[in-house]
Amino acid sequence: MTQNIYDNDKFFAGYTQLSRSIEGLDGAAEWPALRALLPGLQGLRVLDLGCGFGWFCRWARGEGAAQILGIDVSENMLARARAETKDRAITYAREDLERVDLPSGAFNLVFSSLTLHYLENLDRLLSQVHRALVAGGHLVFSAEHPIYTAPSAPGWSTNAAGGKVWPVDSYLEEGPRSTDWLAKGVIKQHRTLATYLNMLLRLGFSLRQIEEWRPTDAQIAARPSLAEERHRPMFFLLSAQRP
Amino acid sequence: MTQNIYDNDKFFAGYTQLSRSIEGLDGAAEWPALRALLPGLQGLRVLDLGCGFGWFCRWARGEGAAQILGIDVSENMLARARAETKDRAITYAREDLERVDLPSGAFNLVFSSLTLHYLENLDRLLSQVHRALVAGGHLVFSAEHPIYTAPSAPGWSTNAAGGKVWPVDSYLEEGPRSTDWLAKGVIKQHRTLATYLNMLLRLGFSLRQIEEWRPTDAQIAARPSLAEERHRPMFFLLSAQRP
Repeated sequence: MTQNIYDNDKFFAGYTQLSRSIEGLDGAAEWPALRALLPGLQGLRVLDLGCGFGWFCRWARGEGAAQILGIDVSENMLARARAETKDRAITYAREDLERVDLPSGAFNLVFSSLTLHYLENLDRLLSQVHRALVAGGHLVFSAEHPIYTAPSAPGWSTNAAGGKVWPVDSYLEEGPRSTDWLAKGVIKQHRTLATYLNMLLRLGFSLRQIEEWRPTDAQIAARPSLAEERHRPMFFLLSAQRP
Repeated sequence: MTQNIYDNDKFFAGYTQLSRSIEGLDGAAEWPALRALLPGLQGLRVLDLGCGFGWFCRWARGEGAAQILGIDVSENMLARARAETKDRAITYAREDLERVDLPSGAFNLVFSSLTLHYLENLDRLLSQVHRALVAGGHLVFSAEHPIYTAPSAPGWSTNAAGGKVWPVDSYLEEGPRSTDWLAKGVIKQHRTLATYLNMLLRLGFSLRQIEEWRPTDAQIAARPSLAEERHRPMFFLLSAQRP
């Protein structure tokens, strides 16, 4: 099983303090860009991979989705997700995304927010996703951008002119990266953008749109610390379709 | 018209000394990866955008292409390209890629090597390319990778641990970059990878494969200085198709 960092007490305590944990989708600066990639949700059967506290599942229900299944490996996350709703159209299940078996042709939309970069066997999961989608069904996800995950020692630095820079190394060396974020030794899997894209193409997906996330001018005006995010994309967002 | 740097005497003198100018395709480390993206060339009508000295045009003819048109803005490059062949299946034309009008449905393959990152009006050119391809026709190109073109002051640096790093800034700020390479003030157009991909998708291309170029182990063994190229991709290679 993948490292289940969300059930690490120190990590989880830190995670619950993030604005995206307190404010939900509106606390995630990339949410407007991710939402823009989604199809209309009315009547759809939706799967959320790495549903966390269930913010997206509840939002999807509010947008008219007919049935939503949220899956996550973390007991901590699922306990809170279950406590937040009584809507019987929303179901949660504890699953390891490295090993999950998804039902065939069961969903119109598979969604995932900032989860796929934790997985070792991404090819296996995306193959399951392809099978689980109906023809014409959508896959929309965000993940940490490879420019963000690549460095052996990630962090901002300063160049000779005093400007902020993000030093990149090892971009083309794929594999695990251990970082200290909320807890020590959080393991992510670094993959190049080409690897993500070619994996989807090989599995038979059609690519629809790719975004390397940047904050809007309005977001920077409201929260000036976001300005540095224009120097390198922290996330990428992708929309694909099963033809 | 775009800056025609290949007709700058100092730049051109430097360019003719590069291994890719002396040895041709085999002097370009990314060529094996780019060649792997090409369809079989037997009988094809081929267009080469930014044909330079015509190395690809002559190679394509050797692979059985029926007709090859190489276009370039540089008199210097075309003069040498014309001097290198008497094959009447190969034609060269001087054209500014910012303004060229391509014939409709005239080509089975459009190829371009390390040219598109010079263009301001890439959308216009790729729209022309889409129109110029037959249904099922291929577009295969290489361009400088956005990680390579992004920095305001591109160059290797060293991190606190003494390791080589490529400091990235301004990745999400698209537009011209002035660099000193063979001559002062060479202007390239920085675009994110997502911009290239979405432009192709919007124009109606299907993406087939994307490569962020890395040297192979054998290439590094033969030329150890290539090892640093694993820290960040200098080029990306792309294969797309008009459905």
